Amino acid sequence: MIYADNAATTQLDLDAYESMKKYLLSDFGNPSQPYSFSHTAKAAISEAREIIAECIGADSDEIFFTSGGTESDNWALKGYMKAHKKKKLIISSIEHHAVIHTADSLLNEGYEVDLLDVTHEGIVLPSWLKMKINEDVALVSVMLANNEIGSIEPVDELAEIAHEYGTAFHTDAVQAAGHIPIDVKNSGVDMLSASAHKFNGPRGIGFLYIKDGTKISPFMDGGAQERHMRAGTENVPAIVGMAVALKKNCNIIETEKKHLHMLEEELIARLYQKKLQFIRNGSKNHLPGIVNLSFKDSEGEMILHRMDLLGICISTGSACDSINNQISHVIKAIHVPEEYATGTIRISFGKDNSIEDVKIIVEALAKILQ
Amino acid sequence: MIYADNAATTQLDLDAYESMKKYLLSDFGNPSQPYSFSHTAKAAISEAREIIAECIGADSDEIFFTSGGTESDNWALKGYMKAHKKKKLIISSIEHHAVIHTADSLLNEGYEVDLLDVTHEGIVLPSWLKMKINEDVALVSVMLANNEIGSIEPVDELAEIAHEYGTAFHTDAVQAAGHIPIDVKNSGVDMLSASAHKFNGPRGIGFLYIKDGTKISPFMDGGAQERHMRAGTENVPAIVGMAVALKKNCNIIETEKKHLHMLEEELIARLYQKKLQFIRNGSKNHLPGIVNLSFKDSEGEMILHRMDLLGICISTGSACDSINNQISHVIKAIHVPEEYATGTIRISFGKDNSIEDVKIIVEALAKILQ
Repeated sequence: MIYADNAATTQLDLDAYESMKKYLLSDFGNPSQPYSFSHTAKAAISEAREIIAECIGADSDEIFFTSGGTESDNWALKGYMKAHKKKKLIISSIEHHAVIHTADSLLNEGYEVDLLDVTHEGIVLPSWLKMKINEDVALVSVMLANNEIGSIEPVDELAEIAHEYGTAFHTDAVQAAGHIPIDVKNSGVDMLSASAHKFNGPRGIGFLYIKDGTKISPFMDGGAQERHMRAGTENVPAIVGMAVALKKNCNIIETEKKHLHMLEEELIARLYQKKLQFIRNGSKNHLPGIVNLSFKDSEGEMILHRMDLLGICISTGSACDSINNQISHVIKAIHVPEEYATGTIRISFGKDNSIEDVKIIVEALAKILQ
Repeated sequence: MIYADNAATTQLDLDAYESMKKYLLSDFGNPSQPYSFSHTAKAAISEAREIIAECIGADSDEIFFTSGGTESDNWALKGYMKAHKKKKLIISSIEHHAVIHTADSLLNEGYEVDLLDVTHEGIVLPSWLKMKINEDVALVSVMLANNEIGSIEPVDELAEIAHEYGTAFHTDAVQAAGHIPIDVKNSGVDMLSASAHKFNGPRGIGFLYIKDGTKISPFMDGGAQERHMRAGTENVPAIVGMAVALKKNCNIIETEKKHLHMLEEELIARLYQKKLQFIRNGSKNHLPGIVNLSFKDSEGEMILHRMDLLGICISTGSACDSINNQISHVIKAIHVPEEYATGTIRISFGKDNSIEDVKIIVEALAKILQ
C-alpha cells in the first residue's frame, strides 16, 4: 500500500508511542491528585508543555491542552467572542470546517461573521483584510496553511493589521504545525490551534496557544485542570506522545521540506510527461508535500476509488468532509474552472514516501485518466 | 504502593490496551476517508459503538463519542439548552463540577439554573424535584451516582417526573458506568454521560448517550464526524479500548460488587475496632468500593499526605477539584457536622484491591489519627 494522505492523518511516531506506554500502563495516577504516585504524571505534563512551547516559540504557560484541533478552534472562536463585547468576527472563506462551522454556530447565536475572499492561489491578501476590518471586529481567524491546497497565509501581516484595530488574531495551524517553522512571538498571533495526529502524534490530543494576557472564556467547564481554563482529566499518555512527536518533527523540518518538495516536483514533472490535463491548486508558498490537482472533465471520487483499487490512498479534499460528495468550499473559493473542479484530488506526502511511490502514483493516475 | 483512589482514575485494562495497539500502530487510516485502508478503523468504531450500546441497553446510533465525561456533560447541558426555547435548567447541588460549572456558564449567558437539595445521605428526593419542577424547565440533570460519596440517585423516578412536565432528563454517569448496571431504555433517561478512564478504559475518551429523537445542538462544530453531531477526527484506538474495558467491567459487575462490599465492610469494622471517631458519608445504596469518611477534628489534606508517606493513595474528594483546599460542595450539601467536615477523605477500592490492603489502610489511619 502507498499512503499519500498524510494531510488527513499521519502514522504515530514510534518514539512517541514508546513515550506513551509508561503512562498508559503503569504511571496512571491522576495528575490532579497531590500524592507522590501522581508526581511523575504531573511532571510529564509540565515537561510536555515546555517542549511544545519551545517548538512554537511560546512560554509554557501559554499552552493549553485540548482534545484536538477541532476543540482548539471551537475554544478560540467561541471562548474569545464570549469574553468580549464586540460581536463581529472575520474569518477567511477557506478555513477548515472546524472554524467555519464554529463561526456559523456563533452567527446563529447573534454574532456577526464576515468572510474574507482569497486569491486564485488561496491567499488572503492583507489589503483585503484592511478593507473589511474596523474597530467593531473582535477577532480575525485565518489559518496558517490550508488543509486542502496547502497555501500558507501571511498571518504575521494579517495579525499586525488586526492589532491596529484592537482586534485579536487566531490562526488554525492544525495542518501546519510540525511541518513549517512556527514562532508565535515573532508572528504576533494571539491564539494558535494545533492537533497531534497531523504531525505523527496520537489521536485525541491537541493544544491551543493563548498569548499571555488574552481574555478568553473556557470552552469546557468543570474541574480545575489547565489552570481552570480547560476542564477534564488530563490525557497524560497523549500529551507526552504529542510533545515527543512535535519536537521530532520540528527538528527535521528543513530536511523534510527538501525531501517533500523533491517528491512534489517529481510528481508534477511525471504528470506533464503523461500529458494529463490538470491544474495544480494552491500557492507556490505551500505546505511541503501537499499537492492538490484538478483534472479536466473528471471525478475526484472516481479517481480516489480507482487509486484505492490499485493500493494507493489519496483524498478528494478534507477527510473531515469526505462524507459530503461535492466540490469543496476551498476549491470553490479559489475559482477552479468548472470543468476541472469536480476532478480534484489531494495527494499529501509524508516523511515515509519515496520517489518510487511517486512513480507508482503517476502510473496509476495515467491509467485511470488516459 | 496501595492504590485506593479508583474513583479518581483507574488503571488501563491490559486487554483494552492490547486492543488499542493495532490502531495506534498500523491501522491508522482516518475513518472518515472512503479508501479500503480506513475500513478496518471505520468498522472498529462501529463495533465499539455496538458494544457500548449493548452495555447500557441503548441502540448503537444513540452513542456519540466524546473526549470524556467533562465534554459529555458540557455537550448535554449546553447543547440541549441551546436547541430549546425554555431557559430553565435544574441540577442537583452535588453534581460534579463538569455539570455545576457548565450550569454556571449557562447562567452567565442568561439561562436560569435551579439547584436541588439532597438528603443527609446525598439523595435527591423525587418529591423535592416535584416541588421545583414546572412546564418552564427544559432540562433536569442529576447524576447517576456521586463521585465523592458514591450515593446512587433515583434517576428512573426523577426522569419520570421530568417527563410529566415535558422536561428532558440527563444523568452524569461518569462515576457509575461500568460499576453498576445501566439500562437506559428501562431507566428512561434522555441523555447519559460516561468517561472511559473511570472504568479501566483509556484517557481522553468518553461518550454521550442521546436518546433517539432528542433535539440537541452539537457542542463541537466542524467536520461531519459522528453523523454531524460531534466534529473532530475519531480517536479510534481510544474508542476501541473504551469498548473493551466497558464490556469487561460490565461482565463482572456482580462479582466485583461482592468483592468491593466485602472490602468496605472489613474497612468499617476494623475502623470501629480502632475506636476512631468518624462518620461514613453517603447512602447505603452506593457505588461499590467508595468509602467517604469524615474524621472528627482532623484535616483531610493532612491524612492524605501522611497516607501518601506510608505508600497509600487516597483522596480528599474529587481529583478534579483537589487544587482547591476547602470543604467540598458535596460534603457541605449533605451537612456533615463542622467538626467532622474538614477531616473528610475518600477511599475508593477497585478490582485489584485486597483484604490485605484494607488492613494496611486501617493501620495507617489509626497511626495517623490516634
